[in-house]
Amino acid sequence: MAKYRTDLKDISFNLFKDLKVQEHTQDYGENDLKDIIIQFDKFAENEVYSCRVEGDEVGVKLTEDRGVVVPESFKKATKQYYENGWFALGYPEEIGGMPAPHSVSFACTSIYVGANCALSMYSGLSQGAMNVILQVGSDEQKAKFIAPMMEGRWGGTMCLTEPGAGSDVGASKTTASPNDDGTYSVKGVKIFISSGESDIYENNIHLVLARTPGSEEGTKGLSLFIVPRSQVNEDGSVGEYNNVKCTKIEEKMGIHGSATCELTFGGEGDCRGWLIGKEHEGIVNMFIMMNEARLLCGIQGESQANLAYELTEQYAKERSQFNKEIINHPDVKRMLLKMRAMSRGMRSLILYTSNLFDVEKTGDKLAEKELALLTPVCKAYCTDEAFQVTVDAIQVHGGYGYCTEYGIEQFARDTKIATIYEGTNGIQALDFVMRKILKDKGETFMALGAKIQESLANPIASKWKNECASLATSMQKAQTILEHYGKYANDKNFDAILASSTDFLAFCGNLIVAWRLLRGAIVAEELLAQGDEDKVYLESKALDFKIFCQHYLSRNAGIAQSILNFDQDWTTVEL
Amino acid sequence: MAKYRTDLKDISFNLFKDLKVQEHTQDYGENDLKDIIIQFDKFAENEVYSCRVEGDEVGVKLTEDRGVVVPESFKKATKQYYENGWFALGYPEEIGGMPAPHSVSFACTSIYVGANCALSMYSGLSQGAMNVILQVGSDEQKAKFIAPMMEGRWGGTMCLTEPGAGSDVGASKTTASPNDDGTYSVKGVKIFISSGESDIYENNIHLVLARTPGSEEGTKGLSLFIVPRSQVNEDGSVGEYNNVKCTKIEEKMGIHGSATCELTFGGEGDCRGWLIGKEHEGIVNMFIMMNEARLLCGIQGESQANLAYELTEQYAKERSQFNKEIINHPDVKRMLLKMRAMSRGMRSLILYTSNLFDVEKTGDKLAEKELALLTPVCKAYCTDEAFQVTVDAIQVHGGYGYCTEYGIEQFARDTKIATIYEGTNGIQALDFVMRKILKDKGETFMALGAKIQESLANPIASKWKNECASLATSMQKAQTILEHYGKYANDKNFDAILASSTDFLAFCGNLIVAWRLLRGAIVAEELLAQGDEDKVYLESKALDFKIFCQHYLSRNAGIAQSILNFDQDWTTVEL
Repeated sequence: MAKYRTDLKDISFNLFKDLKVQEHTQDYGENDLKDIIIQFDKFAENEVYSCRVEGDEVGVKLTEDRGVVVPESFKKATKQYYENGWFALGYPEEIGGMPAPHSVSFACTSIYVGANCALSMYSGLSQGAMNVILQVGSDEQKAKFIAPMMEGRWGGTMCLTEPGAGSDVGASKTTASPNDDGTYSVKGVKIFISSGESDIYENNIHLVLARTPGSEEGTKGLSLFIVPRSQVNEDGSVGEYNNVKCTKIEEKMGIHGSATCELTFGGEGDCRGWLIGKEHEGIVNMFIMMNEARLLCGIQGESQANLAYELTEQYAKERSQFNKEIINHPDVKRMLLKMRAMSRGMRSLILYTSNLFDVEKTGDKLAEKELALLTPVCKAYCTDEAFQVTVDAIQVHGGYGYCTEYGIEQFARDTKIATIYEGTNGIQALDFVMRKILKDKGETFMALGAKIQESLANPIASKWKNECASLATSMQKAQTILEHYGKYANDKNFDAILASSTDFLAFCGNLIVAWRLLRGAIVAEELLAQGDEDKVYLESKALDFKIFCQHYLSRNAGIAQSILNFDQDWTTVEL
Repeated sequence: MAKYRTDLKDISFNLFKDLKVQEHTQDYGENDLKDIIIQFDKFAENEVYSCRVEGDEVGVKLTEDRGVVVPESFKKATKQYYENGWFALGYPEEIGGMPAPHSVSFACTSIYVGANCALSMYSGLSQGAMNVILQVGSDEQKAKFIAPMMEGRWGGTMCLTEPGAGSDVGASKTTASPNDDGTYSVKGVKIFISSGESDIYENNIHLVLARTPGSEEGTKGLSLFIVPRSQVNEDGSVGEYNNVKCTKIEEKMGIHGSATCELTFGGEGDCRGWLIGKEHEGIVNMFIMMNEARLLCGIQGESQANLAYELTEQYAKERSQFNKEIINHPDVKRMLLKMRAMSRGMRSLILYTSNLFDVEKTGDKLAEKELALLTPVCKAYCTDEAFQVTVDAIQVHGGYGYCTEYGIEQFARDTKIATIYEGTNGIQALDFVMRKILKDKGETFMALGAKIQESLANPIASKWKNECASLATSMQKAQTILEHYGKYANDKNFDAILASSTDFLAFCGNLIVAWRLLRGAIVAEELLAQGDEDKVYLESKALDFKIFCQHYLSRNAGIAQSILNFDQDWTTVEL
């Protein structure tokens, strides 16, 4: 069976050669940062990846006496994750963290998630909830919750969805009624709550969207509440049960090791919550974690695609049919080259985007907007395309890929959810086109376009004439499509825009990832010219770019036709 | 929850209005044939679909005492399938069959498979094995095996794959040594044997590829053997155990209700087999069932896509978000229209191809070759694209689609295997390009092209200028690609052809399905002009064609670029 393997060379190349993220920190040199990643990768291999298949087979159970029970190996791995200080990576020292460039901690997150997506969700959700408390919590709330969450004694969740409120969060019916002591009594049912309950943590700190009495309908009437599963005593210890009950866990296609809970708040007795941030600013505050959660979805795709590729490449070199290794059959080689180009391309996009958090801090005005623009692309493009990569991994493995014991088909099942949660990919496309492009009249998009033009103008790029010509054509077509959308927008015919926004996001994903790979190819050529001796790896960067253009960027020809050359009067058709 | 629903109107339209299959039979009129399908659909709803989710949850078990045990509901449904005479549909009266046009029995098969893919495999494999015995078995073999197989007392399988022999069947190591009494002692291990053992049947009749002593290596040295699980007594009753042991069942991504067995022949004692057909003609005889099995794979895709569409359309009309049914959100409508156009397009291709079996009997010389040409397209294109349709079904259902209890994600898991077995889709592409097109110098392909041109020349087609222009352009591009392949073939650079054969198959699938939908649109317009009052349905045919051209045929622009505009020197690159 193929062995766990991370393309550490490619991660380092992106971080230190292309993005030069070492310049964002005074605390560490390039080698220190590399070492962090190497150490984390060893941990991931030994403790995280090792229980990936077991988590899928054993899954989680809702028991009468012990609530939600996760596999023992998950508890052990999570405990070590905290003890080794990995949870603390990227957080400030004041709260016991270990500061690091955002892109470096995201690189570690990617390794973690790829090695065991289901496991990573427990600490991942906890980080998300903690980040909200750190940013908008009162001093008292921070004092109460941050330390136990940093130490891994308590976990956290985000509770948005209800049976009638999925994409339409504003339809939430959960209520929060104020009490005389400043607390709120929370009542309602939330569904699809990842990590909603588990025996990993002593307590769960839920961030719950709910409506206070007399609030308006829709998202504007929602406020955010901290609702611990058990009350917290004065001395910080876990107190009385707070009537947050896991009333169901979902059987799912994948991420079996992650507990997806229905949580009933105040079903059998009073359930107390505390307002966090201002009343009616619940959605804004929830989006503090949502934006990062969307990037994390992209990482769920990117990371699993990359690991699936690594395992598949090894299999294809070991498995022989017709007297040669199957990797040497052109159809299999095509699949592998495509898988690698796409997986590495997504990695480059994700690391570039993560790095914008740090670039933003340097005073770069564009960075924040670019981050906002690229977040839906990372989320939707990387999950849709990663799913295809994992499906190709099954295909290369043939019948063995379809059998559970090899752990390959699990990648496809585990990855699929990321196209749905944290805002379906359709919602991402809406966000991308309407809010991130049309709302600022395409300014940020064009600024990104200028960066792409800059790379195309690099003398080294002339080595790949055909591919760069394709990229330039795609850039022009994107402009044409935006003008086309502009006309619809002037006529207030937004449905006509939304009819193809998913296609346009895919178009832009192809474009942007092709650019990221072009950048990689240029940097690799520069290093080769400077005498860098890692020829095999560095030359593979140009191949990735070429393969990507041949097989993915070429799709833009058809997408552009589909958006521009056909009338779209079907939005009003009855089915 | 959405209700089981079959688009009987669309099936009838294809069979009786477009293909006019009623002309292939004297025994029944159009209404009789329609009635067969309606009755079968009722059976499928009540007995077959009803245990689809249960089969997935319960799965099959290998027990010490009872061998492979399937869900009770599967046994009941299969029993009724035989008792109601559905197994006999399409077989000659002499053996207790009920003759019907091939396309009609395949339409019923499609309903059966769509309603419960795992269940359908037991009788499906049995039909495949029986067809081989019918065609090449000796009179004695027919007398012994056909009746109990027709009655559903005995099942059948095809045993090709071994651990080292997947795509490369010729690497089989199973041996068959002749005994003095004319029998052979069979020894070896076959894996991935669908329906390899079950408590549905009293006996299992295995068709096993094995090598006789002194035979040459590769496929040419293989012969085919009938190897019953238990011997057959003189009076036809089930006799002594024949040492065919199920030594493992696979845990799989999907089709959990179908027993995928490792079978050990002669592991613990003598295992007797009978040569069927001539020695060393095993592969040719196995391909009697293989060609139909490949078409059946296409049906596994087509049928599940169609049912997934029907369920998803209903869900999208019931589920409301943002104060309207989600079907009225443009992005969801786009997905549904695409799903319908593709699913109906695949149906049209499958029924057209099934009908060629009957057209062939009318003396049409092209039909046999066209059937051979279209078989790999049905197999690979319909399984790849159907998988995407089922993935879109999950997407439209959102979080609910990812949860097991709604039975939606099961379609994706159950469909995926069809891209792998009966020759991976990569093998199909090789067969399509090398054997079905280049070997006959493109003659059959061009004859099909002439049919497409004929439809394009129909005056009604001018209603859809844009779409027909796309189709014509694709036809020209196909020709260009074939010329490009011709040059490689002249240079004996076959790897360069195989590097893009999967892409070319997809290209041709888009082209051929677009044509099938154009034909449907033309026929629908003719009926409307004749005063047919079913306007809503008939007008939907033109919409399907237009949507397909916009979203699928448009892809051919990118595929053609990918094949023609980039150098393909990567076939020799090391990974």
